[in-house]
Amino acid sequence: MKISIDKGSSVPVYLQIRNQIKDQVLSGLLPPGFRLPPERKLAEMLGINRSTVLNAYRELKADALIDSHIGQGTVVLSPKPPEPFSFSSPAALPWHQLFSGYVASIKEPLLRDLMEIVGRENVISFAAGMAAPELFPLEIFQKIYRRVTQSYGPAAFLHTPTEGCYFFRESISTFMGARGVSLSPEEILILSGSQQGLDLLVRAFLDPGDAVIVEEPSFFSAIQAFQAAGARVREIPVDQNGMQVELLEPMLIKYKPKFIYTLPTFQNPSGAVMSLQRRGRLLELAYKYQVPVLEDDPYGELRYEDQGLPSLKALDTRGYVIYLSTFSKMLFPGLRVGWLAAPPPVVHKLALIKQMVDLHPNSLAQYLIDAFLKEGLLDRHLDQVRREYALRRNVMLEELTRWAPPETYWNEPKGGYYLWCRLPENTVLSKLLTKCADRGVAFVPGDVFFTGSPPGNYIRLNFTFSKPEKIRAGVKQFISALNETLQENKTKRKGIKNQMKPIV
Amino acid sequence: MKISIDKGSSVPVYLQIRNQIKDQVLSGLLPPGFRLPPERKLAEMLGINRSTVLNAYRELKADALIDSHIGQGTVVLSPKPPEPFSFSSPAALPWHQLFSGYVASIKEPLLRDLMEIVGRENVISFAAGMAAPELFPLEIFQKIYRRVTQSYGPAAFLHTPTEGCYFFRESISTFMGARGVSLSPEEILILSGSQQGLDLLVRAFLDPGDAVIVEEPSFFSAIQAFQAAGARVREIPVDQNGMQVELLEPMLIKYKPKFIYTLPTFQNPSGAVMSLQRRGRLLELAYKYQVPVLEDDPYGELRYEDQGLPSLKALDTRGYVIYLSTFSKMLFPGLRVGWLAAPPPVVHKLALIKQMVDLHPNSLAQYLIDAFLKEGLLDRHLDQVRREYALRRNVMLEELTRWAPPETYWNEPKGGYYLWCRLPENTVLSKLLTKCADRGVAFVPGDVFFTGSPPGNYIRLNFTFSKPEKIRAGVKQFISALNETLQENKTKRKGIKNQMKPIV
Repeated sequence: MKISIDKGSSVPVYLQIRNQIKDQVLSGLLPPGFRLPPERKLAEMLGINRSTVLNAYRELKADALIDSHIGQGTVVLSPKPPEPFSFSSPAALPWHQLFSGYVASIKEPLLRDLMEIVGRENVISFAAGMAAPELFPLEIFQKIYRRVTQSYGPAAFLHTPTEGCYFFRESISTFMGARGVSLSPEEILILSGSQQGLDLLVRAFLDPGDAVIVEEPSFFSAIQAFQAAGARVREIPVDQNGMQVELLEPMLIKYKPKFIYTLPTFQNPSGAVMSLQRRGRLLELAYKYQVPVLEDDPYGELRYEDQGLPSLKALDTRGYVIYLSTFSKMLFPGLRVGWLAAPPPVVHKLALIKQMVDLHPNSLAQYLIDAFLKEGLLDRHLDQVRREYALRRNVMLEELTRWAPPETYWNEPKGGYYLWCRLPENTVLSKLLTKCADRGVAFVPGDVFFTGSPPGNYIRLNFTFSKPEKIRAGVKQFISALNETLQENKTKRKGIKNQMKPIV
Repeated sequence: MKISIDKGSSVPVYLQIRNQIKDQVLSGLLPPGFRLPPERKLAEMLGINRSTVLNAYRELKADALIDSHIGQGTVVLSPKPPEPFSFSSPAALPWHQLFSGYVASIKEPLLRDLMEIVGRENVISFAAGMAAPELFPLEIFQKIYRRVTQSYGPAAFLHTPTEGCYFFRESISTFMGARGVSLSPEEILILSGSQQGLDLLVRAFLDPGDAVIVEEPSFFSAIQAFQAAGARVREIPVDQNGMQVELLEPMLIKYKPKFIYTLPTFQNPSGAVMSLQRRGRLLELAYKYQVPVLEDDPYGELRYEDQGLPSLKALDTRGYVIYLSTFSKMLFPGLRVGWLAAPPPVVHKLALIKQMVDLHPNSLAQYLIDAFLKEGLLDRHLDQVRREYALRRNVMLEELTRWAPPETYWNEPKGGYYLWCRLPENTVLSKLLTKCADRGVAFVPGDVFFTGSPPGNYIRLNFTFSKPEKIRAGVKQFISALNETLQENKTKRKGIKNQMKPIV
């Protein structure tokens, strides 16, 4: 502790001492617990009156910076923030009166609850659309992390451009080139997950009242995002060859949609693949009516049987298709990296919005996945997950075939993440959900994939997340719950007939 | 290659052969380069006519799946995607006609250009608000990465809840507890950078036409986000003690704002600290008029002189304050992790929006920063950067004091990232910017921090990003450009007098 006294100063000596000790306490030079010299001793050291030191110490006590106890001397306290202001009535703010109109239009989402269920111990989840965690290439990423931080240093932790790192956009351009889509890096926007692509597109294109065409059923988060923006969402049913494009033209004339939203390859939830002929016709109509097509393609690389069809983006000769994909389904979801391919004016506008939304995508994630791509590791990884997911799909199909009661139908998807099942007409889905939860099994009820009432008891089952033995056990539990539900309902059955719609 | 023939089938035998070979080629069972048996041999093996095999092979050639060359036999080709559809006129879509009203309201942002300049080689940047890259604790993060992936495994790469990992929200709650703010983890929302907090709050609270009160000058991205949402942005000037809260009450009465946006501690750009008295009065008025206060506090921990004042959130006894902060300024910006503290109903609504916006924050980033916090490494890191930033600030002050021409003024900030300077009245900022760019120095012109015309030639200089020797060199270049600008303008000077406003 150093104190210097200026006897010529206009500041009284006791305040000079107070101020210097205070500064040293607040700056941490005198840490909490530090014992100050006894008053008499300090007075001697400074050659001043003891009462001057006494006054200085008294001030410091009043500031709650020191305290003295008999036997312990005078000790520095942990500096405390001042007491909160106190006001008479403790009235809380009526927050619900302050929220915007946008908030009122958002429904409580299902997905959060699903993720919550999946997170529980001992639940076999057929609900969420998640990659198999035991296939995550953690060791490879450990090595990549070291290489990336050694070769790039702090850059991997600094800002990147809003559109994403240019070299990463180049890598994605190469990746898409190998899939028949020729793009410059300027046509690619890196996203903080593909959900962000939907959000940016909604903001860039939809004013309240605008129409959007979607498939029925379709990805629930997309439907929800369109609806929350105040769009009129119009549906075209899906059959085993994807969106029934034959029905599209009159809807384009009638609704003048802002865009057409489609998942042409291994559709979520139906698993359907849009035929090549329909892909061509869809583009033809888009060109004729000048409507952009939003192609959502998270599952395209996850094909288990044949080589697959070219994406709409690959077929598009006029830049009408905005293409959306993600590493979440191919690799893992936690790094939140997706991308979008669109003509430069669209990428530019979306980047303007993205800058206000989250400034730019996570830098480290871009560096890591870029290295994974550049070293050719994604293709290797895809080979591995394709084999494993095909196996899991087969196990689920096998178990359903073995155990499912009559009038239960499902597709046999050639790729993607899901089986889409139709349960017997008299299944009460809410009861089935509860019974399954009791048995530790989760699935997604089909109604979230429809804007209106679904035309039957549909459910979506994921087969990629759980290991084969869990799938076997889970399907058995599921079927047992289903049989019990049907049994209970048998006597109560009233012969309601749902209208059929051609949905896979 | 396996072919089985069903002579009883209605499918002609040549098509049976074609279909089976096609399936095997597309599934990869017969890889490119595989040599098919000669026609005669296959005919013998299957006990059929040679012309039947010939027909099958002809079909496969037409499908571009095989080809035959004399001397090489018949070989499997790499399956190609079909040619793109071709349509007569190559008309592009008139994208600009399709964008939403929201897009029209966004101005081209300055920040992107700034980041572009900063990214250039050999530029001394006083422009962007970035942490010192050479202080990034890369080696510590290397170790943390290994520990995190070893102890948590795939979880660090899986989905997390939309609000953020619960344990990370607990760590932030502890961090804020040490800063005098007592919060439950349920009152904390993890953000993909604090810019996202602004965006979510805008969506949750602002309908077009709503008023918002901001400081003048204030953080440009916040102003821009409020304006893009169609809000009426109203300003209260800042002096050396922060927002002039004395002027607030009549504005609350007149504009009935949705919220008050303030950066009370080391304000961006002015560096001002709102006095304790004004903090109390601000809360008092917020309570009286039932207006929430949005406290943006990215710089609060970066204090270089004394212990600092309690945050508004720490003083708030009624839950009126929504608190926003980030690891970008304390640690580094590339992981894009910020957080928000607010009463549970607000956190809940914001999470509903966030789910549609990007599903959840980057998982790995949460695990890494959580470990950094739990191991007490952030406080240690803060000690280090505080020392270094104080040094850099002093260097910049010293150089300005030494070289700046008369009628140049600046603050001496006690924390944060910026000097806020007022240049001589007859400085032409656009000329100065160009001259500085030629000399490889960048700064931010002050007008972006104002909603209207700034009351003087203000500029913002960052002192954290560049090393001391660069700061010295950069200030000299800057001053030389300034003198040149003033010199050139001397003869042209017309004696325009700007009105003074009390801004630091």
